[in-house]
Amino acid sequence: MKPKRITSHSNTAVKEAARLKRKRNRYAVRLFLAEGEDLLDAALRRLIMPRQVFVLEGHEEPAGKALAEALATGGESRRGRQPRAEAPEFYAVSQPVMAKLSELGSGSRVISVFALQEPRLPDAPPAAAGTGGAAGEETAAGPLVFLAGAGDPGNVGTAIRSAAALGAGGVILDPETADPYSPKALRATMGSVFNIPVYLNVAAGELVAWAVGLGLKIVAADAHRGMAPWEADLSGGFVLALGAERGGLSGRLKAAAQEIVHIPQVSAAESVNVAQSGSILLYEALRQRKC
Amino acid sequence: MKPKRITSHSNTAVKEAARLKRKRNRYAVRLFLAEGEDLLDAALRRLIMPRQVFVLEGHEEPAGKALAEALATGGESRRGRQPRAEAPEFYAVSQPVMAKLSELGSGSRVISVFALQEPRLPDAPPAAAGTGGAAGEETAAGPLVFLAGAGDPGNVGTAIRSAAALGAGGVILDPETADPYSPKALRATMGSVFNIPVYLNVAAGELVAWAVGLGLKIVAADAHRGMAPWEADLSGGFVLALGAERGGLSGRLKAAAQEIVHIPQVSAAESVNVAQSGSILLYEALRQRKC
Repeated sequence: MKPKRITSHSNTAVKEAARLKRKRNRYAVRLFLAEGEDLLDAALRRLIMPRQVFVLEGHEEPAGKALAEALATGGESRRGRQPRAEAPEFYAVSQPVMAKLSELGSGSRVISVFALQEPRLPDAPPAAAGTGGAAGEETAAGPLVFLAGAGDPGNVGTAIRSAAALGAGGVILDPETADPYSPKALRATMGSVFNIPVYLNVAAGELVAWAVGLGLKIVAADAHRGMAPWEADLSGGFVLALGAERGGLSGRLKAAAQEIVHIPQVSAAESVNVAQSGSILLYEALRQRKC
Repeated sequence: MKPKRITSHSNTAVKEAARLKRKRNRYAVRLFLAEGEDLLDAALRRLIMPRQVFVLEGHEEPAGKALAEALATGGESRRGRQPRAEAPEFYAVSQPVMAKLSELGSGSRVISVFALQEPRLPDAPPAAAGTGGAAGEETAAGPLVFLAGAGDPGNVGTAIRSAAALGAGGVILDPETADPYSPKALRATMGSVFNIPVYLNVAAGELVAWAVGLGLKIVAADAHRGMAPWEADLSGGFVLALGAERGGLSGRLKAAAQEIVHIPQVSAAESVNVAQSGSILLYEALRQRKC
Protein backbone atom coordinates (compact mmCIF):
# COMPACT_ATOMS: atom_id res chain seq x y z
CA MET A 1 0.00 0.00 0.00
CA LYS A 2 1.11 3.54 -0.73
CA PRO A 3 0.48 6.21 1.87
CA LYS A 4 -0.91 9.70 1.41
CA ARG A 5 1.48 12.40 2.54
CA ILE A 6 0.51 14.74 5.38
CA THR A 7 2.75 17.66 6.19
CA SER A 8 0.48 19.89 8.24
CA HIS A 9 -0.12 19.65 12.00
CA SER A 10 -3.59 20.99 11.42
CA ASN A 11 -4.65 18.17 9.12
CA THR A 12 -8.00 16.87 10.36
CA ALA A 13 -6.94 13.23 10.52
CA VAL A 14 -3.91 14.16 12.62
CA LYS A 15 -5.89 16.40 14.93
CA GLU A 16 -8.55 13.77 15.53
CA ALA A 17 -6.02 11.03 16.13
CA ALA A 18 -4.06 13.21 18.56
CA ARG A 19 -7.26 13.69 20.58
CA LEU A 20 -7.16 9.95 21.34
CA LYS A 21 -4.25 10.53 23.69
CA ARG A 22 -6.90 11.53 26.25
CA LYS A 23 -8.88 8.71 27.83
CA ARG A 24 -12.16 10.60 27.71
CA ASN A 25 -11.84 11.09 23.97
CA ARG A 26 -10.92 7.43 23.40
CA TYR A 27 -14.12 6.26 24.99
CA ALA A 28 -16.25 8.97 23.37
CA VAL A 29 -15.42 7.70 19.87
CA ARG A 30 -14.30 4.16 20.82
CA LEU A 31 -10.94 4.35 19.13
CA PHE A 32 -7.41 4.09 20.51
CA LEU A 33 -3.86 4.78 19.39
CA ALA A 34 -1.39 1.92 19.17
CA GLU A 35 2.22 3.10 19.07
CA GLY A 36 4.89 1.05 17.37
CA GLU A 37 5.36 -1.74 14.87
CA ASP A 38 4.92 -4.47 17.47
CA LEU A 39 1.31 -3.57 18.19
CA LEU A 40 0.42 -3.23 14.51
CA ASP A 41 2.05 -6.57 13.73
CA ALA A 42 0.23 -8.28 16.62
CA ALA A 43 -3.10 -6.97 15.36
CA LEU A 44 -2.44 -7.96 11.75
CA ARG A 45 -1.44 -11.47 12.80
CA ARG A 46 -4.97 -11.71 14.18
CA LEU A 47 -6.33 -10.08 11.01
CA ILE A 48 -7.53 -7.18 13.11
CA MET A 49 -7.34 -4.20 10.80
CA PRO A 50 -6.59 -0.66 11.98
CA ARG A 51 -8.74 2.24 10.86
CA GLN A 52 -5.75 4.45 10.21
CA VAL A 53 -2.00 4.03 10.11
CA PHE A 54 0.47 6.92 10.38
CA VAL A 55 4.07 6.14 9.44
CA LEU A 56 7.12 8.34 9.64
CA GLU A 57 8.22 9.38 6.14
CA GLY A 58 11.06 7.23 4.93
CA HIS A 59 9.69 4.21 6.81
CA GLU A 60 6.59 3.53 4.73
CA GLU A 61 7.55 0.15 3.36
CA PRO A 62 7.35 -2.39 6.21
CA ALA A 63 3.94 -1.18 7.39
CA GLY A 64 2.61 -0.84 3.82
CA LYS A 65 3.69 -4.37 3.00
CA ALA A 66 2.25 -5.84 6.20
CA LEU A 67 -1.08 -4.09 5.60
CA ALA A 68 -1.27 -5.28 1.99
CA GLU A 69 -0.54 -8.87 3.04
CA ALA A 70 -3.14 -8.84 5.81
CA LEU A 71 -5.72 -7.38 3.44
CA ALA A 72 -4.99 -10.08 0.89
CA THR A 73 -5.21 -12.90 3.44
CA GLY A 74 -8.60 -12.84 5.13
CA GLY A 75 -9.66 -16.20 6.50
CA GLU A 76 -9.72 -17.82 9.90
CA SER A 77 -8.84 -16.18 13.17
CA ARG A 78 -9.77 -16.87 16.76
CA ARG A 79 -12.66 -14.45 16.36
CA GLY A 80 -14.03 -16.72 13.65
CA ARG A 81 -14.11 -16.24 9.92
CA GLN A 82 -13.28 -12.61 9.21
CA PRO A 83 -14.97 -10.64 6.48
CA ARG A 84 -12.40 -9.26 4.08
CA ALA A 85 -11.44 -6.10 5.95
CA GLU A 86 -11.59 -2.60 4.61
CA ALA A 87 -8.23 -1.01 3.90
CA PRO A 88 -7.18 1.52 6.53
CA GLU A 89 -6.36 5.13 5.76
CA PHE A 90 -2.60 5.11 5.38
CA TYR A 91 -0.56 8.30 5.90
CA ALA A 92 3.11 9.22 5.75
CA VAL A 93 3.85 12.07 8.12
CA SER A 94 6.79 14.23 9.15
CA GLN A 95 8.68 13.87 12.43
CA PRO A 96 6.84 16.81 14.09
CA VAL A 97 3.45 15.33 13.17
CA MET A 98 4.55 11.96 14.58
CA ALA A 99 5.65 13.67 17.78
CA LYS A 100 2.21 15.23 18.07
CA LEU A 101 0.59 11.78 17.90
CA SER A 102 3.08 10.04 20.18
CA GLU A 103 2.76 9.78 23.91
CA LEU A 104 5.65 7.44 24.58
CA GLY A 105 8.24 9.77 23.13
CA SER A 106 10.45 6.89 22.18
CA GLY A 107 10.75 7.70 18.50
CA SER A 108 7.77 5.71 17.32
CA ARG A 109 7.73 5.23 13.55
CA VAL A 110 4.25 3.76 13.26
CA ILE A 111 1.10 4.81 15.09
CA SER A 112 -2.19 3.08 14.28
CA VAL A 113 -5.77 3.81 15.21
CA PHE A 114 -7.94 0.82 16.15
CA ALA A 115 -11.54 0.32 17.18
CA LEU A 116 -11.82 0.00 20.95
CA GLN A 117 -13.83 -3.09 21.82
CA GLU A 118 -15.97 -3.04 24.94
CA PRO A 119 -17.26 -6.63 25.12
CA ARG A 120 -19.94 -7.58 27.63
CA LEU A 121 -19.26 -10.39 30.09
CA PRO A 122 -20.13 -13.60 28.27
CA ASP A 123 -23.09 -15.83 29.08
CA ALA A 124 -20.79 -18.85 29.37
CA PRO A 125 -17.17 -19.16 30.55
CA PRO A 126 -14.98 -18.37 27.55
CA ALA A 127 -12.49 -20.83 26.10
CA ALA A 128 -8.80 -20.26 26.71
CA ALA A 129 -7.12 -17.53 24.69
CA GLY A 130 -5.09 -18.46 21.68
CA THR A 131 -6.85 -21.68 20.92
CA GLY A 132 -7.59 -20.62 17.37
CA GLY A 133 -5.39 -21.54 14.47
CA ALA A 134 -5.92 -25.26 14.12
CA ALA A 135 -9.63 -25.31 13.31
CA GLY A 136 -11.90 -27.16 15.68
CA GLU A 137 -9.25 -27.56 18.36
CA GLU A 138 -10.42 -26.50 21.81
CA THR A 139 -8.42 -26.12 24.99
CA ALA A 140 -9.97 -26.30 28.44
CA ALA A 141 -10.82 -22.79 29.58
CA GLY A 142 -8.16 -21.29 31.80
CA PRO A 143 -9.08 -18.89 34.58
CA LEU A 144 -10.43 -15.42 34.02
CA VAL A 145 -8.45 -12.69 35.71
CA PHE A 146 -10.18 -9.89 37.62
CA LEU A 147 -8.06 -6.82 38.43
CA ALA A 148 -9.40 -4.44 41.08
CA GLY A 149 -7.87 -1.02 41.64
CA ALA A 150 -4.66 -1.73 39.74
CA GLY A 151 -3.59 1.85 39.13
CA ASP A 152 -0.29 1.43 37.31
CA PRO A 153 -0.70 1.23 33.51
CA GLY A 154 2.47 -0.80 33.09
CA ASN A 155 1.26 -3.40 35.57
CA VAL A 156 -2.13 -3.60 33.88
CA GLY A 157 -0.52 -4.11 30.49
CA THR A 158 1.87 -6.70 31.86
CA ALA A 159 -0.98 -8.55 33.56
CA ILE A 160 -2.88 -8.70 30.25
CA ARG A 161 0.21 -9.97 28.49
CA SER A 162 0.80 -12.71 31.05
CA ALA A 163 -2.87 -13.68 31.03
CA ALA A 164 -2.77 -14.14 27.26
CA ALA A 165 0.51 -16.05 27.40
CA LEU A 166 -0.53 -18.35 30.22
CA GLY A 167 -3.87 -19.36 28.77
CA ALA A 168 -6.37 -17.23 30.68
CA GLY A 169 -9.81 -16.91 29.12
CA GLY A 170 -10.05 -13.15 29.55
CA VAL A 171 -9.18 -10.20 31.74
CA ILE A 172 -11.85 -8.25 33.62
CA LEU A 173 -11.02 -4.77 34.91
CA ASP A 174 -12.85 -2.86 37.60
CA PRO A 175 -13.54 0.87 37.18
CA GLU A 176 -10.55 1.85 39.36
CA THR A 177 -8.05 -0.07 37.25
CA ALA A 178 -5.87 1.91 34.83
CA ASP A 179 -7.09 2.13 31.24
CA PRO A 180 -5.60 -0.75 29.22
CA TYR A 181 -5.88 1.38 26.07
CA SER A 182 -3.46 4.07 27.25
CA PRO A 183 -0.15 4.10 25.35
CA LYS A 184 1.85 2.93 28.37
CA ALA A 185 -0.47 0.02 29.15
CA LEU A 186 -0.62 -0.99 25.48
CA ARG A 187 3.15 -1.01 25.22
CA ALA A 188 3.35 -3.37 28.18
CA THR A 189 0.79 -5.73 26.61
CA MET A 190 3.17 -6.21 23.66
CA GLY A 191 0.07 -6.61 21.50
CA SER A 192 -1.59 -9.32 23.54
CA VAL A 193 -4.55 -6.97 24.02
CA PHE A 194 -5.57 -8.19 20.56
CA ASN A 195 -5.39 -11.84 21.65
CA ILE A 196 -7.55 -12.00 24.73
CA PRO A 197 -10.93 -10.49 25.63
CA VAL A 198 -10.64 -7.50 27.97
CA TYR A 199 -13.81 -6.56 29.85
CA LEU A 200 -13.95 -2.99 31.14
CA ASN A 201 -15.65 -1.23 34.05
CA VAL A 202 -16.90 -4.31 35.88
CA ALA A 203 -17.48 -3.47 39.54
CA ALA A 204 -16.80 -6.15 42.17
CA GLY A 205 -20.52 -6.62 42.88
CA GLU A 206 -21.28 -7.18 39.23
CA LEU A 207 -18.41 -9.64 38.96
CA VAL A 208 -19.61 -11.66 41.93
CA ALA A 209 -23.19 -11.81 40.61
CA TRP A 210 -21.92 -12.88 37.20
CA ALA A 211 -19.60 -15.59 38.58
CA VAL A 212 -22.34 -16.96 40.84
CA GLY A 213 -24.72 -17.03 37.89
CA LEU A 214 -22.29 -19.11 35.83
CA GLY A 215 -21.28 -21.30 38.78
CA LEU A 216 -17.68 -20.07 38.47
CA LYS A 217 -15.51 -20.30 41.57
CA ILE A 218 -13.81 -17.10 42.71
CA VAL A 219 -10.25 -17.45 43.96
CA ALA A 220 -8.96 -14.32 45.67
CA ALA A 221 -5.26 -13.56 46.08
CA ASP A 222 -4.29 -11.99 49.36
CA ALA A 223 -0.94 -10.50 50.34
CA HIS A 224 -1.13 -11.62 53.96
CA ARG A 225 -3.09 -14.81 54.46
CA GLY A 226 -4.59 -17.78 52.65
CA MET A 227 -3.48 -21.17 51.53
CA ALA A 228 -0.42 -21.77 49.41
CA PRO A 229 -1.35 -21.77 45.71
CA TRP A 230 -0.33 -25.43 45.33
CA GLU A 231 -2.78 -26.39 48.09
CA ALA A 232 -5.73 -24.79 46.30
CA ASP A 233 -7.56 -26.51 43.46
CA LEU A 234 -6.84 -24.30 40.46
CA SER A 235 -7.25 -26.96 37.81
CA GLY A 236 -10.70 -26.02 36.53
CA GLY A 237 -12.27 -22.79 35.32
CA PHE A 238 -12.40 -20.00 37.91
CA VAL A 239 -12.07 -16.26 38.35
CA LEU A 240 -8.74 -15.18 39.80
CA ALA A 241 -9.29 -11.91 41.68
CA LEU A 242 -6.25 -9.70 42.22
CA GLY A 243 -6.30 -6.49 44.23
CA ALA A 244 -4.32 -3.29 44.17
CA GLU A 245 -0.86 -3.26 45.63
CA ARG A 246 -1.69 -1.29 48.78
CA GLY A 247 -5.42 -1.70 49.23
CA GLY A 248 -5.86 -5.33 48.26
CA LEU A 249 -9.29 -6.70 47.47
CA SER A 250 -12.46 -5.45 49.16
CA GLY A 251 -13.83 -7.41 52.10
CA ARG A 252 -16.95 -8.04 50.08
CA LEU A 253 -15.06 -9.70 47.31
CA LYS A 254 -12.99 -11.79 49.70
CA ALA A 255 -16.18 -12.85 51.48
CA ALA A 256 -17.60 -14.01 48.14
CA ALA A 257 -14.46 -15.98 47.26
CA GLN A 258 -14.54 -19.75 47.66
CA GLU A 259 -10.77 -19.85 48.13
CA ILE A 260 -8.17 -17.36 49.29
CA VAL A 261 -4.63 -17.98 48.16
CA HIS A 262 -1.43 -16.38 49.34
CA ILE A 263 1.95 -16.56 47.65
CA PRO A 264 4.45 -17.41 50.40
CA GLN A 265 6.94 -14.59 50.71
CA VAL A 266 10.07 -14.19 52.69
CA SER A 267 8.77 -11.48 55.01
CA ALA A 268 5.79 -9.22 55.45
CA ALA A 269 7.85 -6.30 54.16
CA GLU A 270 8.45 -8.06 50.86
CA SER A 271 5.89 -8.66 48.19
CA VAL A 272 5.48 -9.17 44.48
CA ASN A 273 3.44 -6.70 42.42
CA VAL A 274 -0.03 -7.40 41.08
CA ALA A 275 1.23 -8.47 37.66
CA GLN A 276 3.75 -10.84 39.26
CA SER A 277 1.08 -12.36 41.50
CA GLY A 278 -1.12 -12.87 38.47
CA SER A 279 1.63 -14.58 36.50
CA ILE A 280 2.54 -16.87 39.37
CA LEU A 281 -1.05 -17.93 40.00
CA LEU A 282 -1.81 -18.43 36.30
CA TYR A 283 1.33 -20.52 36.07
CA GLU A 284 0.19 -22.60 39.04
CA ALA A 285 -3.21 -23.08 37.40
CA LEU A 286 -1.50 -24.14 34.17
CA ARG A 287 0.73 -26.56 36.08
CA GLN A 288 -2.27 -28.14 37.79
CA ARG A 289 -4.13 -28.47 34.47
CA LYS A 290 -1.12 -30.16 32.86
CA CYS A 291 0.01 -32.38 35.73
CA MET B 1 16.18 15.26 63.66
CA LYS B 2 15.97 18.85 62.46
CA PRO B 3 17.05 19.60 58.91
CA LYS B 4 19.24 22.44 57.66
CA ARG B 5 17.48 24.67 55.18
CA ILE B 6 18.80 24.97 51.61
CA THR B 7 17.24 27.51 49.29
CA SER B 8 19.85 27.81 46.56
CA HIS B 9 20.15 25.57 43.49
CA SER B 10 23.85 26.18 43.53
CA ASN B 11 24.38 24.75 47.01
CA THR B 12 27.23 22.27 46.80
CA ALA B 13 25.34 19.39 48.42
CA VAL B 14 22.50 19.82 45.93
CA LYS B 15 24.80 20.07 42.95
CA GLU B 16 26.74 16.97 43.94
CA ALA B 17 23.60 14.97 44.62
CA ALA B 18 22.06 16.02 41.30
CA ARG B 19 25.15 14.68 39.52
CA LEU B 20 24.14 11.19 40.74
CA LYS B 21 21.30 11.18 38.23
CA ARG B 22 23.95 10.09 35.71
CA LYS B 23 25.12 6.51 35.86
CA ARG B 24 28.75 7.39 35.25
CA ASN B 25 28.79 9.74 38.21
CA ARG B 26 27.08 7.20 40.46
CA TYR B 27 29.82 4.67 39.88
CA ALA B 28 32.60 7.26 40.07
CA VAL B 29 31.72 8.14 43.67
CA ARG B 30 29.77 4.96 44.57
CA LEU B 31 26.63 6.75 45.70
CA PHE B 32 23.07 6.66 44.41
CA LEU B 33 19.85 8.63 44.79
CA ALA B 34 16.79 6.92 46.24
CA GLU B 35 13.57 8.80 45.51
CA GLY B 36 10.61 8.56 47.82
CA GLU B 37 9.66 7.61 51.35
CA ASP B 38 9.30 3.92 50.50
CA LEU B 39 12.96 3.48 49.66
CA LEU B 40 14.14 5.39 52.72
CA ASP B 41 11.82 3.37 54.95
CA ALA B 42 12.99 0.09 53.43
CA ALA B 43 16.61 1.03 54.09
CA LEU B 44 15.97 2.17 57.65
CA ARG B 45 14.10 -1.06 58.43
CA ARG B 46 17.39 -2.79 57.61
CA LEU B 47 19.28 -0.14 59.62
CA ILE B 48 20.99 0.93 56.44
CA MET B 49 21.67 4.63 56.94
CA PRO B 50 21.69 7.15 54.09
CA ARG B 51 24.53 9.65 53.75
CA GLN B 52 22.16 12.51 53.01
CA VAL B 53 18.44 13.08 53.05
CA PHE B 54 16.70 15.93 51.22
CA VAL B 55 13.08 16.58 52.16
CA LEU B 56 10.62 19.04 50.69
CA GLU B 57 10.03 21.92 53.12
CA GLY B 58 6.84 21.40 55.07
CA HIS B 59 7.35 17.62 55.03
CA GLU B 60 10.31 17.36 57.37
CA GLU B 61 8.68 15.44 60.18
CA PRO B 62 8.11 11.86 58.99
CA ALA B 63 11.63 11.50 57.61
CA GLY B 64 13.19 13.26 60.61
CA LYS B 65 11.38 10.98 63.01
CA ALA B 66 12.24 7.81 61.07
CA LEU B 67 15.90 8.80 60.95
CA ALA B 68 16.03 9.55 64.67
CA GLU B 69 14.42 6.21 65.49
CA ALA B 70 16.77 4.25 63.27
CA LEU B 71 19.77 6.04 64.77
CA ALA B 72 18.56 5.25 68.28
CA THR B 73 17.92 1.58 67.49
CA GLY B 74 21.10 0.01 66.21
CA GLY B 75 21.26 -3.71 66.86
CA GLU B 76 20.65 -6.80 64.80
CA SER B 77 20.01 -6.88 61.07
CA ARG B 78 20.49 -9.51 58.44
CA ARG B 79 23.91 -8.02 57.77
CA GLY B 80 24.82 -8.86 61.36
CA ARG B 81 25.29 -6.57 64.34
CA GLN B 82 25.44 -3.00 63.03
CA PRO B 83 27.69 -0.38 64.46
CA ARG B 84 25.71 2.61 65.63
CA ALA B 85 25.47 4.51 62.37
CA GLU B 86 26.54 8.07 61.75
CA ALA B 87 23.67 10.53 61.35
CA PRO B 88 23.10 11.59 57.75
CA GLU B 89 23.20 15.16 56.54
CA PHE B 90 19.56 16.22 56.64
CA TYR B 91 18.30 19.09 54.46
CA ALA B 92 14.95 20.77 53.88
CA VAL B 93 14.76 22.14 50.36
CA SER B 94 12.35 24.11 48.18
CA GLN B 95 10.25 22.58 45.42
CA PRO B 96 12.59 23.78 42.63
CA VAL B 97 15.60 22.23 44.38
CA MET B 98 13.66 18.98 44.80
CA ALA B 99 12.78 19.06 41.11
CA LYS B 100 16.47 19.41 40.29
CA LEU B 101 17.26 16.24 42.26
CA SER B 102 14.29 14.23 41.01
CA GLU B 103 14.31 12.07 37.94
CA LEU B 104 10.92 10.47 38.33
CA GLY B 105 9.02 13.76 38.26
CA SER B 106 6.27 12.33 40.38
CA GLY B 107 6.42 14.92 43.12
CA SER B 108 8.93 13.15 45.34
CA ARG B 109 9.07 14.64 48.83
CA VAL B 110 12.12 12.74 50.05
CA ILE B 111 15.31 11.97 48.15
CA SER B 112 18.13 10.17 49.93
CA VAL B 113 21.74 9.46 49.01
CA PHE B 114 23.08 6.00 49.84
CA ALA B 115 26.39 4.22 49.43
CA LEU B 116 26.37 2.01 46.36
CA GLN B 117 27.53 -1.48 47.28
CA GLU B 118 29.43 -3.50 44.70
CA PRO B 119 29.80 -6.88 46.42
CA ARG B 120 32.02 -9.54 44.91
CA LEU B 121 30.57 -12.96 44.13
CA PRO B 122 30.77 -14.94 47.35
CA ASP B 123 33.06 -17.88 47.96
CA ALA B 124 30.10 -20.02 49.06
CA PRO B 125 26.45 -20.02 47.96
CA PRO B 126 24.71 -17.35 50.04
CA ALA B 127 21.80 -18.09 52.37
CA ALA B 128 18.32 -17.03 51.33
CA ALA B 129 17.48 -13.34 51.64
CA GLY B 130 15.51 -12.15 54.61
CA THR B 131 16.55 -14.92 56.94
CA GLY B 132 17.75 -12.47 59.55
CA GLY B 133 15.55 -11.21 62.34
CA ALA B 134 15.19 -14.26 64.50
CA ALA B 135 18.81 -14.78 65.45
CA GLY B 136 20.42 -18.04 64.45
CA GLU B 137 17.56 -19.08 62.16
CA GLU B 138 18.69 -20.24 58.76
CA THR B 139 16.65 -21.02 55.67
CA ALA B 140 17.91 -23.24 52.89
CA ALA B 141 19.47 -21.06 50.21
CA GLY B 142 17.11 -20.32 47.35
CA PRO B 143 18.42 -19.90 43.84
CA LEU B 144 20.56 -17.05 42.66
CA VAL B 145 19.18 -15.15 39.70
CA PHE B 146 21.42 -14.16 36.78
CA LEU B 147 20.03 -11.52 34.41
CA ALA B 148 21.71 -11.18 31.02
CA GLY B 149 20.99 -8.25 28.72
CA ALA B 150 17.83 -7.13 30.52
CA GLY B 151 17.68 -3.59 29.19
CA ASP B 152 14.50 -2.25 30.76
CA PRO B 153 15.11 -0.62 34.18
CA GLY B 154 11.56 -1.37 35.34
CA ASN B 155 11.98 -5.06 34.56
CA VAL B 156 15.32 -5.18 36.35
CA GLY B 157 13.85 -3.53 39.44
CA THR B 158 10.83 -5.82 39.38
CA ALA B 159 13.06 -8.88 39.01
CA ILE B 160 15.08 -7.80 42.07
CA ARG B 161 11.86 -7.24 44.03
CA SER B 162 10.52 -10.68 43.13
CA ALA B 163 13.84 -12.33 43.88
CA ALA B 164 13.88 -10.81 47.35
CA ALA B 165 10.23 -11.70 47.98
CA LEU B 166 10.52 -15.27 46.74
CA GLY B 167 13.60 -16.18 48.71
CA ALA B 168 16.41 -15.94 46.18
CA GLY B 169 19.91 -15.70 47.61
CA GLY B 170 21.01 -12.84 45.36
CA VAL B 171 20.74 -11.27 41.94
CA ILE B 172 23.66 -11.21 39.53
CA LEU B 173 23.59 -8.76 36.62
CA ASP B 174 25.65 -8.93 33.47
CA PRO B 175 27.23 -5.78 32.01
CA GLU B 176 24.43 -5.33 29.44
CA THR B 177 21.68 -5.30 32.06
CA ALA B 178 20.18 -1.94 33.02
CA ASP B 179 21.64 -0.25 36.09
CA PRO B 180 19.64 -1.30 39.17
CA TYR B 181 20.61 1.99 40.85
CA SER B 182 18.82 4.21 38.33
CA PRO B 183 15.74 5.97 39.75
CA LYS B 184 13.33 3.93 37.60
CA ALA B 185 14.84 0.58 38.52
CA LEU B 186 14.98 1.54 42.19
CA ARG B 187 11.33 2.53 42.20
CA ALA B 188 10.40 -0.88 40.79
CA THR B 189 12.43 -2.65 43.49
CA MET B 190 10.20 -1.02 46.14
CA GLY B 191 13.23 -0.99 48.40
CA SER B 192 14.08 -4.66 48.10
CA VAL B 193 17.46 -3.64 46.71
CA PHE B 194 18.40 -3.17 50.37
CA ASN B 195 17.30 -6.72 51.25
CA ILE B 196 19.17 -8.88 48.79
CA PRO B 197 22.74 -8.86 47.49
CA VAL B 198 23.02 -7.47 43.96
CA TYR B 199 26.19 -8.37 42.06
CA LEU B 200 27.10 -6.08 39.18
CA ASN B 201 28.99 -6.48 35.91
CA VAL B 202 29.36 -10.24 35.94
CA ALA B 203 29.88 -11.51 32.40
CA ALA B 204 28.44 -14.89 31.41
CA GLY B 205 31.87 -16.49 31.27
CA GLU B 206 32.71 -15.33 34.76
CA LEU B 207 29.36 -16.57 36.04
CA VAL B 208 29.88 -20.02 34.56
CA ALA B 209 33.37 -20.31 36.01
CA TRP B 210 32.11 -19.22 39.42
CA ALA B 211 29.16 -21.63 39.41
CA VAL B 212 31.35 -24.53 38.32
CA GLY B 213 33.82 -23.67 41.07
CA LEU B 214 31.09 -23.82 43.71
CA GLY B 215 29.42 -26.87 42.19
CA LEU B 216 26.24 -24.85 41.61
CA LYS B 217 23.89 -26.08 38.91
CA ILE B 218 22.93 -23.57 36.20
CA VAL B 219 19.31 -23.66 35.08
CA ALA B 220 18.69 -21.59 31.95
CA ALA B 221 15.26 -20.30 30.98
CA ASP B 222 14.47 -20.41 27.28
CA ALA B 223 11.52 -18.87 25.48
CA HIS B 224 11.21 -21.66 22.93
CA ARG B 225 12.31 -25.03 24.23
CA GLY B 226 13.19 -26.94 27.34
CA MET B 227 11.40 -28.96 29.95
CA ALA B 228 8.42 -27.68 31.88
CA PRO B 229 9.54 -26.05 35.14
CA TRP B 230 7.70 -28.65 37.21
CA GLU B 231 9.68 -31.42 35.47
CA ALA B 232 13.02 -29.88 36.41
CA ASP B 233 14.59 -30.34 39.84
CA LEU B 234 14.60 -26.83 41.27
CA SER B 235 14.52 -27.84 44.91
CA GLY B 236 18.16 -27.20 45.79
CA GLY B 237 20.53 -24.29 45.32
CA PHE B 238 21.17 -23.27 41.71
CA VAL B 239 21.70 -20.30 39.44
CA LEU B 240 18.62 -19.34 37.43
CA ALA B 241 19.83 -17.68 34.22
CA LEU B 242 17.36 -15.39 32.45
CA GLY B 243 18.03 -13.72 29.12
CA ALA B 244 16.87 -10.55 27.44
CA GLU B 245 13.42 -10.46 25.94
CA ARG B 246 14.50 -10.57 22.29
CA GLY B 247 17.97 -12.03 22.36
CA GLY B 248 17.61 -14.67 25.05
CA LEU B 249 20.68 -16.22 26.61
CA SER B 250 23.92 -16.77 24.75
CA GLY B 251 24.60 -20.19 23.29
CA ARG B 252 27.63 -20.44 25.52
CA LEU B 253 25.59 -20.00 28.65
CA LYS B 254 22.97 -22.46 27.48
CA ALA B 255 25.68 -24.97 26.68
CA ALA B 256 26.99 -24.60 30.23
CA ALA B 257 23.53 -25.07 31.75
CA GLN B 258 22.69 -28.44 33.30
CA GLU B 259 18.99 -27.88 32.69
CA ILE B 260 16.97 -25.75 30.28
CA VAL B 261 13.46 -24.88 31.34
CA HIS B 262 10.66 -23.37 29.30
CA ILE B 263 7.45 -21.88 30.63
CA PRO B 264 4.66 -23.39 28.52
CA GLN B 265 2.88 -20.60 26.69
CA VAL B 266 -0.18 -20.50 24.60
CA SER B 267 1.51 -19.73 21.31
CA ALA B 268 4.89 -18.76 19.95
CA ALA B 269 3.69 -15.19 19.52
CA GLU B 270 2.91 -14.87 23.22
CA SER B 271 5.42 -14.64 25.97
CA VAL B 272 5.96 -13.30 29.45
CA ASN B 273 8.64 -10.70 30.13
CA VAL B 274 11.93 -11.44 31.88
CA ALA B 275 10.67 -10.31 35.29
CA GLN B 276 7.57 -12.49 34.93
CA SER B 277 9.65 -15.51 33.92
CA GLY B 278 11.86 -14.94 36.92
CA SER B 279 8.91 -14.75 39.30
CA ILE B 280 7.32 -17.88 37.91
CA LEU B 281 10.52 -19.91 38.11
CA LEU B 282 11.37 -18.67 41.61
CA TYR B 283 7.84 -19.56 42.66
CA GLU B 284 8.26 -23.05 41.20
CA ALA B 285 11.56 -23.43 43.08
CA LEU B 286 9.85 -22.31 46.29
CA ARG B 287 7.00 -24.76 45.69
CA GLN B 288 9.44 -27.60 45.20
CA ARG B 289 11.35 -26.67 48.37
CA LYS B 290 8.14 -26.58 50.40
CA CYS B 291 6.34 -29.60 48.95
